[in-house]
Amino acid sequence: MAELSREELDGIYAFAVNLGKEAGRMLLEAAQLRYGDKRPKEKEHVEKDNAVDLVTQTDEDVEAFIKDQVTKKYPSHKFIGEETYSKGASREYLIGNEPTWCVDPLDGTVNYIHLFPMFCVSIGFIVNGKATIGVVFAPFLNQLFSACTGRGAWLNETQQLPLVRDPIPSMPAKAPGGCVFACEWGKDRRDQPDSNLHRKVESFVNMAAEVGGRNGRGGMVHGVRCLGSATLDLAYTAMGSVDIWWEGGCWEWDVAAGIAILSEAGGLVTSANPPENEATAPVEEVRLGSRLYLAIRPAGPSPTETGREGQERTVREVWRRVRNLDYSRPGA
Amino acid sequence: MAELSREELDGIYAFAVNLGKEAGRMLLEAAQLRYGDKRPKEKEHVEKDNAVDLVTQTDEDVEAFIKDQVTKKYPSHKFIGEETYSKGASREYLIGNEPTWCVDPLDGTVNYIHLFPMFCVSIGFIVNGKATIGVVFAPFLNQLFSACTGRGAWLNETQQLPLVRDPIPSMPAKAPGGCVFACEWGKDRRDQPDSNLHRKVESFVNMAAEVGGRNGRGGMVHGVRCLGSATLDLAYTAMGSVDIWWEGGCWEWDVAAGIAILSEAGGLVTSANPPENEATAPVEEVRLGSRLYLAIRPAGPSPTETGREGQERTVREVWRRVRNLDYSRPGA
Repeated sequence: MAELSREELDGIYAFAVNLGKEAGRMLLEAAQLRYGDKRPKEKEHVEKDNAVDLVTQTDEDVEAFIKDQVTKKYPSHKFIGEETYSKGASREYLIGNEPTWCVDPLDGTVNYIHLFPMFCVSIGFIVNGKATIGVVFAPFLNQLFSACTGRGAWLNETQQLPLVRDPIPSMPAKAPGGCVFACEWGKDRRDQPDSNLHRKVESFVNMAAEVGGRNGRGGMVHGVRCLGSATLDLAYTAMGSVDIWWEGGCWEWDVAAGIAILSEAGGLVTSANPPENEATAPVEEVRLGSRLYLAIRPAGPSPTETGREGQERTVREVWRRVRNLDYSRPGA
Repeated sequence: MAELSREELDGIYAFAVNLGKEAGRMLLEAAQLRYGDKRPKEKEHVEKDNAVDLVTQTDEDVEAFIKDQVTKKYPSHKFIGEETYSKGASREYLIGNEPTWCVDPLDGTVNYIHLFPMFCVSIGFIVNGKATIGVVFAPFLNQLFSACTGRGAWLNETQQLPLVRDPIPSMPAKAPGGCVFACEWGKDRRDQPDSNLHRKVESFVNMAAEVGGRNGRGGMVHGVRCLGSATLDLAYTAMGSVDIWWEGGCWEWDVAAGIAILSEAGGLVTSANPPENEATAPVEEVRLGSRLYLAIRPAGPSPTETGREGQERTVREVWRRVRNLDYSRPGA
């Protein structure tokens, strides 16, 4: 087991926050090359259709920057980045007990290409397999999310998460009724009866439909939201702005930082896929590499249950309404 | 027909921008009462379940403020606000040729209740039935959108819309492929075969599914996004961040300011519901009170078509994939 002192961890946290700010600024500057007065003259006629190459280059540049900074400062730490990792042959789960940086230089790539504001850099630091530090910076929104075990979770370093505190609201008695439900359509768009597209849509409709509808599965959520970034979905759940996030297909670099932030804020993250006995099975902590995530916002107690009980009740109500998603990984 | 000089219009525009900023700050301050250190002690234990009342009060207070300012400054102008209007018995369309303010003090009410950042104040000014000035301020995001006929459309008064310019990108050749598609699930959640819920979901799936799927209707959009605010959907379309927005059920105060901003940026707004000959029928300008909206982002020319031709092609490709929505109004 890796051992890090409080002082060491605080130093790593401060370093990660600054790194996130710098990397986020790089993302925004690269985006501005496409539209602002900072655009080099020779690139004046970059067409939107070519934006994908530009994004790939930005991804690689930002990851290289982060990796370089980390390697210089903490040469003994392991580094897993989306870009370097994706080029490897396998997609095995490589996170062990050693201190490990798990980084997505640009989450929300489609958003970035279209200058839809919800894109960010996502820097996670993992110790003994646990997401311990998370830094997420969305530079277009000027929203910086950060957390370190034992130090609280924060928006822009000044507003503690969740935003509504003293008391933190309990989960609604009729959850998922009264909840903001965040989800993503994703890339798997196969029009086959059992594709993830149709599994997801059936689940979304169950969550949204009136109570009594869908053979008793209607969840009548307060709102359905799709932002296009798993990282920001998790960060918004930590804010308390999203009550429930349900998604499959992400990789650990998409969620490591967000899970660190949400966990430190008091949220719960478990598996998107219902276990066999969904009503009674234990609500287990998510496996970081599972690719299947169900997140519940931080919750305070109600007169009849603890915050954790309210979260677990909500998990079971979601599990009752969603289908198993079909995402796997090598060796899983 | 009402006649306003350029100077008068510019004066009204400057007034509207300041009004939007002040009203947005009121929204954020009221929200902060629920979580920040500005919360009065006696309200310390406001529960989330009571937030609806608080929001209604905020809605009314902000609309009263805006109406008071407008009435003092422009006593001859007509004023239509969501709050005052909704209390009336009918929902007739009341906009004529006279200079008319059309205001939603708080768009994205569900977002506001949950402190999900996408809420805003929306101030439209209409002359001869046309949305002429629009001011939208989302204070949590610190995003101010503004436009006046002939003066361009702007983000935070400094970045002209759409964001990608010189040249403004043409619509993708395979639109809706390559497009960001914004839509909303809305409040009509009836689980009946022909409800708006099921009409919408069928349309969403057509837009998202792989090309070749859905009996040839698969649109393979680049991303599906749901923000929970019609006003911000329109503003993001004006940015160029959203390529296509399709929605029914809004009222004129939800869209007047956004349509002014999108139109001035070069976007197109027509009806959500396909006409009978969707492939050849003229693409008509939207009727402000129609409750059915299909918006396309500003588009530049390609080697083979004008920007407008690309937008109209996209409109027809959307019409081919969506179902008629069932929203009406008294007298329509």
